[in-house]
Amino acid sequence: MHMPLTPYRQLEARFRRIGVLGDIEGMLTWDMATMMPVGSADARAEHLAAIKVLVHELLTDPEMPDLLAAAEGEIGHDGWERANLAEMRRLHLRASAIDAALTDALAKAEAECEMRWRRARPARDFSLVRDTLRRLLDLKREAAVAVGEMLNLAPYDALIDAFEPGMTADKIDRLFAPLVENLPGLLGRVMEHQKPALPLDGPFPVEIQRRLAHDFMEDLGFDFEHGRLDVSLHPFTGGASGDVRLTTRYDESDFTRSLMGVLHETGHALYEQGLPEDWRYQPAGRVPSMMLHESQSLLVEMQACRSFEFLTFAAPRIAKAFGRHGPAWSAENLYRHYTSVKPGAIRVDADEVTYPLHILLRYRLEKALIGGDLPVGELPGAWNEGMNGLLGFTPADDAQGCLQDIHWYDGAFGYFPSYTLGAMAAAQLFEAACKAEPAIGPGLAEGDFKPLIGWLRANVHREASRLAPGDLIHQATGRPLDAASFLNHLKRRYLS
Amino acid sequence: MHMPLTPYRQLEARFRRIGVLGDIEGMLTWDMATMMPVGSADARAEHLAAIKVLVHELLTDPEMPDLLAAAEGEIGHDGWERANLAEMRRLHLRASAIDAALTDALAKAEAECEMRWRRARPARDFSLVRDTLRRLLDLKREAAVAVGEMLNLAPYDALIDAFEPGMTADKIDRLFAPLVENLPGLLGRVMEHQKPALPLDGPFPVEIQRRLAHDFMEDLGFDFEHGRLDVSLHPFTGGASGDVRLTTRYDESDFTRSLMGVLHETGHALYEQGLPEDWRYQPAGRVPSMMLHESQSLLVEMQACRSFEFLTFAAPRIAKAFGRHGPAWSAENLYRHYTSVKPGAIRVDADEVTYPLHILLRYRLEKALIGGDLPVGELPGAWNEGMNGLLGFTPADDAQGCLQDIHWYDGAFGYFPSYTLGAMAAAQLFEAACKAEPAIGPGLAEGDFKPLIGWLRANVHREASRLAPGDLIHQATGRPLDAASFLNHLKRRYLS
Repeated sequence: MHMPLTPYRQLEARFRRIGVLGDIEGMLTWDMATMMPVGSADARAEHLAAIKVLVHELLTDPEMPDLLAAAEGEIGHDGWERANLAEMRRLHLRASAIDAALTDALAKAEAECEMRWRRARPARDFSLVRDTLRRLLDLKREAAVAVGEMLNLAPYDALIDAFEPGMTADKIDRLFAPLVENLPGLLGRVMEHQKPALPLDGPFPVEIQRRLAHDFMEDLGFDFEHGRLDVSLHPFTGGASGDVRLTTRYDESDFTRSLMGVLHETGHALYEQGLPEDWRYQPAGRVPSMMLHESQSLLVEMQACRSFEFLTFAAPRIAKAFGRHGPAWSAENLYRHYTSVKPGAIRVDADEVTYPLHILLRYRLEKALIGGDLPVGELPGAWNEGMNGLLGFTPADDAQGCLQDIHWYDGAFGYFPSYTLGAMAAAQLFEAACKAEPAIGPGLAEGDFKPLIGWLRANVHREASRLAPGDLIHQATGRPLDAASFLNHLKRRYLS
Repeated sequence: MHMPLTPYRQLEARFRRIGVLGDIEGMLTWDMATMMPVGSADARAEHLAAIKVLVHELLTDPEMPDLLAAAEGEIGHDGWERANLAEMRRLHLRASAIDAALTDALAKAEAECEMRWRRARPARDFSLVRDTLRRLLDLKREAAVAVGEMLNLAPYDALIDAFEPGMTADKIDRLFAPLVENLPGLLGRVMEHQKPALPLDGPFPVEIQRRLAHDFMEDLGFDFEHGRLDVSLHPFTGGASGDVRLTTRYDESDFTRSLMGVLHETGHALYEQGLPEDWRYQPAGRVPSMMLHESQSLLVEMQACRSFEFLTFAAPRIAKAFGRHGPAWSAENLYRHYTSVKPGAIRVDADEVTYPLHILLRYRLEKALIGGDLPVGELPGAWNEGMNGLLGFTPADDAQGCLQDIHWYDGAFGYFPSYTLGAMAAAQLFEAACKAEPAIGPGLAEGDFKPLIGWLRANVHREASRLAPGDLIHQATGRPLDAASFLNHLKRRYLS
């Protein structure tokens, strides 16, 4: 006979099921982007909707509040179990805050708005999606209020909390203030300081790009026995625990973007592959926030792989792979390519100096949209005005402006700040890592990532969600998150 | 406000969820065989186990008996709804018959026995798996008795019912009797009659084989907007409703086997792609039995694509694709390859004349194993004796004998008869199709499968599980299933 499970063990069993369903969703989403035939989108939507409903039912099960309360007295002071229970409660409360009718209305409004956005963007006409976005925003605000009441958060903070537990707009304002103050001036000096790069002439055969990417992934320690590299229109890292799958998109006329994109995704993937196996499928065993996820991709990409040190190792290998030589293929010239700064209208094309300004704009606007301070009809104008203030020019049209990102039209409000919080965290973690482990810098120059990845494994990956994201950064770097390391990094890289 | 759903509609909603979960399982299983990195098997086992448990919980929900009883009076005489409800009841009863402890013990015994079989086969030593197989058989018998009591069936019939609803050992005995009587003598005459084929010399590049297979699949009407062709160690057709994925394995020294294998799987795939969309995810909307599934693959492969008519169309295309010419590449010579008969020890290598004899042997042995008439320890001897009686020779060792197939070691008892029932059904359906639609034969000679597939769509695919398998064959061909068409087909093809 089995002993009946204690409340905490019952919760573990339930959340294990939720975790496995989440991984199944990850596999199906990966397949959708990489393998699925075009006509099977409706069938796949059925699969994904079924999983979402199952997970929602499990999270909002009527027995959940009693189990959570009873488990509280059971688990003692173990940090992992405490963190696990706290995350269970947060997930339960978030799911319970929104009733079935609102969940349903939101899902439909998001699908409708995304569909209209897909027509409005090529038409360069915001008015085609305006009314649908207004309806979506109303529902989103309603959900934000409901979640906020449950978690004792202001509505916009309740949206942020979905991606950044513990983060609030007040904290973001303080964290972003030094960027607001310093970045525009820094950008001007960088533009004067930088030197043009020699062109890298293609074509660059896809198969060679793929092999090169594969080899660098192996250098970084990506485990191909538990993961894959494939092609999709929009690069991402997905899959499941123990089966991490990342994607890229190859361009035969330019290898630089796909190659660095793969290294970026490998940063995400190493995080997933480095999570503690003991906590697999439990809430505490997951990456705790989007900022931290982005910190790992940006640390690998921006801090490590765009460094001059690493490019001294990479340049000859790249040149050899493509059978090229000459000054354009020197580490110096590759470094100029990979640190070129150019203000532009499009966020996803932005360099690391201007990128935070794109985020600042979106952060301000979405806060105002959710707060009701910016009517939806005024979004294009506010966008263009904001761009002018931050980057000094006005987008040519809405496609270059407020229609460029899918996020809002897909219901993702509160997500944008994580990108720049992640860039700040990446710089602060990398600085601490290099201080603690002097072999990291020399390692990069030899393509040896072991010292760096070893430090990340111990100080970030293996911690999973045991600590709140802010506490994890504090513990790993010796101080709370701030903008200092990031600004210092930019000055060092772009002004010296 | 929503009206509460009637009992039948509630059942539809529950079985829709079960159907979607089944499709998700299909996607994950496809990925496991085609894409999954080697180290991710444990993670995938978690995914599949979670889905199995969810489906079992849904099927055995305590409210199910009342809903099934209440729905009985609700649905009137609509054939589809009647069939759907009957199939719901059968699935519920099958799942409820076996309690959690036995389900668990069976799953473990199957996994253990399969693992040992994977060692025993290369070692050519049945004794390595004997005791595990005995334990598995005991559990399987226990489950068969339990299911049989629930469905009022003898134990072995309860196992058959999992693959062939409505089929029993008595019926199989009657259906197979003409084969027992005629096949051995027929085989002798075929061996005397057949003429050797000229060799087809390789190599045959994989990419050309792939394109050729792809083109023939298009000729057959496979919908590549809702399906794919990939590579796996063991060819199969899987995936999901609206996303049918089949696989093959290429051999650069022999294209004939992979090509015909793809056409075989395409027969399965066309069935899946031809099921009625209105009944997608419902029990009545599925392929009703393994015999019928196999009838469609064997009809396309054996009846249509190994015919001389089709090979007159295919031979020049194949020769052109590989850049070959000469007498070895004539339709006549290709036909000799594709109708060559040679008794051998291995079932999966067998031609269509000897294949049923392999099945007869397995059918007799598994019936005796389940019935307790054949002790597990005597299986190798009984196998070799049976082979000698049916095909006239003794296998060299257990790997060539009772260890060759995974089925029993994986717990699949009662499955083997479906292969030969499928071959009989394929011949009977093809004969009826050609009679009803005179354009089918001439169509094959021009690579035009539309008349054939059109008839199959209307008479088999679109019927899904509305009728019992036997009734479907009766309705489509004008008489109950028997061995006459199959034996006539063999005589026509191999003796004239």
